[in-house]
Amino acid sequence: MRGRFITLEGGEGSGKSTQARRIADWLRARGRIVVLTREPGGTPLAEAIRTLALQRWDEGMTPTTELLLMFAARSAHVHALIEPHLAAGHDVVCDRFVDSSYAYQGAGKGVDVRHLAALEALVLPKLKPDLTFVLDLPVEQGLRRAHARGQNNRFEDEARPFFERVREAFLARAADEPQRCVVIDARADADTVFDAIVAVLEQRL
Amino acid sequence: MRGRFITLEGGEGSGKSTQARRIADWLRARGRIVVLTREPGGTPLAEAIRTLALQRWDEGMTPTTELLLMFAARSAHVHALIEPHLAAGHDVVCDRFVDSSYAYQGAGKGVDVRHLAALEALVLPKLKPDLTFVLDLPVEQGLRRAHARGQNNRFEDEARPFFERVREAFLARAADEPQRCVVIDARADADTVFDAIVAVLEQRL
Ligand SMILES: Nc1ncnc2c1ncn2[C@@H]1O[C@H](COP(=O)(O)OP(=O)(O)OP(=O)(O)O)[C@@H](O)[C@H]1O
Ligand SMILES: Nc1ncnc2c1ncn2[C@@H]1O[C@H](COP(=O)(O)OP(=O)(O)OP(=O)(O)O)[C@@H](O)[C@H]1O
Ligand SMILES: [Mg+2]
Ligand SMILES: [Mg+2]
Repeated sequence: MRGRFITLEGGEGSGKSTQARRIADWLRARGRIVVLTREPGGTPLAEAIRTLALQRWDEGMTPTTELLLMFAARSAHVHALIEPHLAAGHDVVCDRFVDSSYAYQGAGKGVDVRHLAALEALVLPKLKPDLTFVLDLPVEQGLRRAHARGQNNRFEDEARPFFERVREAFLARAADEPQRCVVIDARADADTVFDAIVAVLEQRL
Repeated sequence: MRGRFITLEGGEGSGKSTQARRIADWLRARGRIVVLTREPGGTPLAEAIRTLALQRWDEGMTPTTELLLMFAARSAHVHALIEPHLAAGHDVVCDRFVDSSYAYQGAGKGVDVRHLAALEALVLPKLKPDLTFVLDLPVEQGLRRAHARGQNNRFEDEARPFFERVREAFLARAADEPQRCVVIDARADADTVFDAIVAVLEQRL
């Protein structure tokens, strides 16, 4: 039987990486074979594309270039890692996926949603996550967490209204696809957030 | 006044790089400021994408991933190099451009032409070459020249029918856009080929 494809979405510092690890461990404890992966990235080629996409370039990078790199990485990732594992019956837990393109390059940077839909049709003609957790919290709180953690990429150069548009876009997508998406209040501590996630996993899987 | 955008297209070893240099020199001798560039590549970011796109990866590379990388590189190239120079009144001579995506990823590797058109609409909403030379010669002769020169990339792993489809696609595109494209018989020596190109340049520019 085909494995389950679970994605985590949300703004900077919302706890996606933290909760993705916990979900993977929870599934493993229930006997599942689980692949924990992330976007952009997940295979050697996709990680190499990630490096180019997140880097600061003297020539700049337009939203269109960024969008195409994200989908190129996704195409490699889906082909070489996600699809083969799902077909083998393994679960795949992915830290960010296509909703992040709609939120960041679409709502955040203004790429027309029709271009996003065309790329989704090209790269993901059949693949949809079975379950997507949208970790939601106020922008300020997420950025504080992300900064406290250190690290820093090109996206964190954006101003506050950018992240507000990203947050709203995640919520709007979740509202449009309630069978797939569950919004999780991510303001609480990591244990409390995970309890909310487990309640959904137990009900849905 | 806006500069002229001239592209060279054709199969492996058809003489694109050789003739692109000569065209640039010819224009410079007539007082033009000329940028000689190539695809995939042309800016630091686009050249970095080129390296990933032409490399052999253990995980393989699907036609879709390849296509997205080519258009990501093109997007950077157009934005940071081609458009600014054309706007400044400089001529741009480019060794391969969008026709190569239709020929290689489209006809060669079977990506649906509708996806190619969607990417062209995203990346090149307004930009068309003013003049495109399609250097045409039998596949065998081109591959012989390319092998004699040495070098070798992932594309040269393809079999003969692939290159036949590529050749036919270039000719079909040239036939569809006769105002933009001129097919040049590339079987002769480089001087003779260049004479044919100059005849067109003198007439068209
Ligand atoms: N519920 C939480 N409460 C407080 N801190 C948290 C919580 N969840 C995660 N953190 C901490 O906040 C920081 C960001 O968390 P994490 O890396 O999981 O977020 P993320 O959504 O993956 O961020 P990014 O978008 O930057 O990848 C980390 O230092 C993490 O330990
Ligand atoms: N008209 C010609 N006759 C014979 N040899 C040629 C001619 N034009 C170029 N060559 C030689 O053939 C080889 C390939 O030419 P060139 O690099 O210009 O082709 P190309 O179309 O750019 O190839 P590629 O598609 O591999 O980039 C070079 O060694 C070049 O010197
Ligand atoms: Mg993270
Ligand atoms: Mg060449």
